[in-house]
Amino acid sequence: MKAKIVTIGDEILIGQIVDTNSAWLATELNKKGIAIDEIVSISDRREAIIETLDDALRTHDLVLATGGLGPTRDDITKQSLCSLFRCGLKDDIESRRHTEAMLRERGIPFTDLNRAQSLVPEACSVLFNRNGTAPGMLFERDGHFLASMPGVPYEMKTIFTEQLAPRLDKMFKLGSVYHKTMITTGIAESILAQKIEQWEESLPEGVKLAYLPNPNGVRLRLSSYTLAGDKAEQAVNEAFGELEKIIADNIIGFEGDTIESVVAELLTSRRQTLSVAESCTGGRIASRFTVMPGASDYFLGSVTSYSVAMKSAVLGVPTQMIEQEGVVSTAVAAAMAEGVKRLTGSDFAVATTGVAGPTGGSEETPVGTVCMAVATPGGTVTDRRVFNSEREVTIERASAYVMNMLREQIKKEGR
Amino acid sequence: MKAKIVTIGDEILIGQIVDTNSAWLATELNKKGIAIDEIVSISDRREAIIETLDDALRTHDLVLATGGLGPTRDDITKQSLCSLFRCGLKDDIESRRHTEAMLRERGIPFTDLNRAQSLVPEACSVLFNRNGTAPGMLFERDGHFLASMPGVPYEMKTIFTEQLAPRLDKMFKLGSVYHKTMITTGIAESILAQKIEQWEESLPEGVKLAYLPNPNGVRLRLSSYTLAGDKAEQAVNEAFGELEKIIADNIIGFEGDTIESVVAELLTSRRQTLSVAESCTGGRIASRFTVMPGASDYFLGSVTSYSVAMKSAVLGVPTQMIEQEGVVSTAVAAAMAEGVKRLTGSDFAVATTGVAGPTGGSEETPVGTVCMAVATPGGTVTDRRVFNSEREVTIERASAYVMNMLREQIKKEGR
Repeated sequence: MKAKIVTIGDEILIGQIVDTNSAWLATELNKKGIAIDEIVSISDRREAIIETLDDALRTHDLVLATGGLGPTRDDITKQSLCSLFRCGLKDDIESRRHTEAMLRERGIPFTDLNRAQSLVPEACSVLFNRNGTAPGMLFERDGHFLASMPGVPYEMKTIFTEQLAPRLDKMFKLGSVYHKTMITTGIAESILAQKIEQWEESLPEGVKLAYLPNPNGVRLRLSSYTLAGDKAEQAVNEAFGELEKIIADNIIGFEGDTIESVVAELLTSRRQTLSVAESCTGGRIASRFTVMPGASDYFLGSVTSYSVAMKSAVLGVPTQMIEQEGVVSTAVAAAMAEGVKRLTGSDFAVATTGVAGPTGGSEETPVGTVCMAVATPGGTVTDRRVFNSEREVTIERASAYVMNMLREQIKKEGR
Repeated sequence: MKAKIVTIGDEILIGQIVDTNSAWLATELNKKGIAIDEIVSISDRREAIIETLDDALRTHDLVLATGGLGPTRDDITKQSLCSLFRCGLKDDIESRRHTEAMLRERGIPFTDLNRAQSLVPEACSVLFNRNGTAPGMLFERDGHFLASMPGVPYEMKTIFTEQLAPRLDKMFKLGSVYHKTMITTGIAESILAQKIEQWEESLPEGVKLAYLPNPNGVRLRLSSYTLAGDKAEQAVNEAFGELEKIIADNIIGFEGDTIESVVAELLTSRRQTLSVAESCTGGRIASRFTVMPGASDYFLGSVTSYSVAMKSAVLGVPTQMIEQEGVVSTAVAAAMAEGVKRLTGSDFAVATTGVAGPTGGSEETPVGTVCMAVATPGGTVTDRRVFNSEREVTIERASAYVMNMLREQIKKEGR
C-alpha cells in the first residue's frame, strides 16, 4: 500500500505559505499504518494538476490532495478533477444549505461564488465540510482512491477526521508501520549518538533509529516496518526501556510530550502553580504554556518587563542591582523570578533576561547571552548561556532551556 | 529555466517535522526570478534519493536538495551523492578546521562522526557552512546544477545566502518572474472577491491575481510571468494603485509587512510606546511584537493576567466590575488596557479577555468569545467578537484583530 500527498497552489511554490497540511496528514496516515512515500507541491495550473493527479492515481493506492478549492478564480482544482474523471458538476444540496446557514450566522451575504463552491464533480462522493464552504471529494479509479480537500488547515483537518478517516479503515487492509518517538533535551546530537551507539547496534532486526533535532532538543524515533502489530510495539518499547537506562536525565517523554506539556502535567497533578517573568523571550514562554488547553489550572500569569522601569516597579527588582550587576545578569533574573512569584503567589516562577539581538551586545554580554532563573518553594537557581543563533532561534532556545530547568526543579522538589 | 526543490528525510514523510525550508528557498529563488515548478519530499532511502535527484537533474536546470547531512547513521545523502556522481569522498580541510574550532568554543569534543561530516564527494565544490558542521555541496552535470545543503534551517539559510546565491547569479541567465503581494485585513475572502471583481477583470494581459487567506487576513498577490523587468513592476504597481482606491481601509501594506510591523513602524516614527495586557491570548501579542528586532524602542512590557487576582492586583481592574460584568466583558478589557497603560506609562495599550476553549464557555459567552480594548492618549475603544475556531486559531485571530484595532487607532490619533 503506497500513499502520496499532493498540495496544490502557486502560493507554496513561491514560498508565500508554509505547507503544514502535509505534515498533519502524514502523521494521521502513519497512525493508521499508511506510509507516505512522497509529498509533492505543484502549481495551480490545470495541466500540472491533471497530470500529477493522474500519475499519482496510477502509482499509488491512495492520493490525498489539498488546495485550490476556494471561491476565487485561481482555484481550479474542481474543474481539473472534472476533466480527469470526465464528468460534469452537480449541486450538493447539503453543502449548499450548510454554506447558506454558516454565512447567515455571520451576517455575510450568500453570493454566486458561494453557490459555485457547493457544486461538485458528478464522479465523486462528497466529504462534508462542517467548518467551511468548500466540500471535500472522494474519487475512485481502478481500486485506487483520490481525496481532494480544501487547503485551509482547520477545514481540511475536520473533513479528514470526520469524513475520510472512517472510510479509509473500510477501504484498505492496513499494513503495520509502527513509530514511536522519544523526546530528549539538553544533549547535543553528536554526543548523544556516541553515547547510544552500542545500544543502536543492538536494535532488533527491522527496527530503525532516526535522529530529529530541533531547537528544543533531539527526538529519537524508532520505526518498525516489518514486525507485525503487537510485536512491533513490544520490540520498540523494549528498546526504549534499554535506552532509558543510558540517558534517563535527558528524557522528556514520548511523541506529543513537550517540555511545557510535561511541566503542565507535573504542576496539575501536584496542584501547584506557575508564573513567568520575561524580558528577552518577550512572552514566548507564557504563550507556550497558555496555548495548551487547561493552562488556567496552574498558570497564574506573567509579566513581560521590557523596560527597566517595569522590572523595578512591577517585579521589585532593586534599581541598584540593575546598575551594579547589569540588566542581563543572573542576579536580575533571580530577582525577576522571585518578584513575579511574590506578585502572583505562585509556587514556581521562571525568568529570562538577555540580548536576543541582532544588536545590543557588548564584549561582556554578546548577542545571544541569556540569564535565566527558576524560583521554587525551596529557593532559586540560575544559569547563564550564550545561544549562538539568530533572534528568533535564541528566543526559542532560551525558552526551552529555562522551561527544562523548571522541569528539573519541579521533579527535585517533589522527591 | 526550471527549478525543483527536493527535501530528504523520513521525518517529513511521517509528519514529524514541517518543511519550512522549501518555502524559504522558494521565496529566495523567486526574488531572483527563478520559478519553482515542483517541491517534493522523499524518504531517506538510498534508492529514493538517487532516483529522485537523477531524475530531477535530467528535467530541471537547478535542483536544490536539503536534509540527510547530519552526523548520524540515518543521514545517507552524501553517500547517495557519491553513487550518483560516481566518485569517492575527500577531506575538506576548511570545513574540518571550522568544525574543530566551533566545537572547541562550545567545549564539545571532536568525534569521528564530526570527522566524517567534513568529508565531501570528490565531484562537488564545497559551499562553506559557517553555522554548522555539515558542508553544503554543489554539483554540475550536463549544464544542470544540484546543490545539497543541510536540513537545519539556519545553516541552510546561511549557506544559501553566503555561498549559493552569489553563484546562481553567475550560473544562470535569469528570467523575469515578478510578484508583489498586498496584505489586507478585516474583510472576508468572498466579499473581497466581489468587491474587486471588476478590477480583476481589468488587469493587464500577463498579470495574474491570487488570493492567499490566513488567520490574519487575505493577501492578494499579483504575478507577472511574461512582462520584462521594469514593465512587470510598473504594471503591477499601477494595478495595486487602482486597488487602493477600492479597499483603502483594509490594506495593511505589502509583502513583508504584518500588522505588528506596521504598528511598530508607526510607533517608532512617532516616538510613542505600547504596552499589552493579555488574558486569553496568553502572551501571543507580546511575543509577536518582541520577536521583531528593535522592539525595545517602543514596547515597554506586558502583563498576562490569567488569574482574576492578577487582573485586580496588578492591573487594577475593580473586583466589583469583574463580578458584575463578568471577566469576559468589554468593561474588563477596557480596564485591563487602561491598567497596563497606567502601570507602564505607555501611550497606547491593548488588552484581551476571552474564552479560547475548548472548555469554559457558556450560553452568554460561548467558546471563542473575546473582548478586546485599545487604550489611546485620547480614550479607550472596545470590541467583542466570537471567533468560531479551535483554541490556537482563536488566539491567533483575536491577536490579529486587536492589533489591527490598535493600528487604526494610532493612525486616527496621528491625524
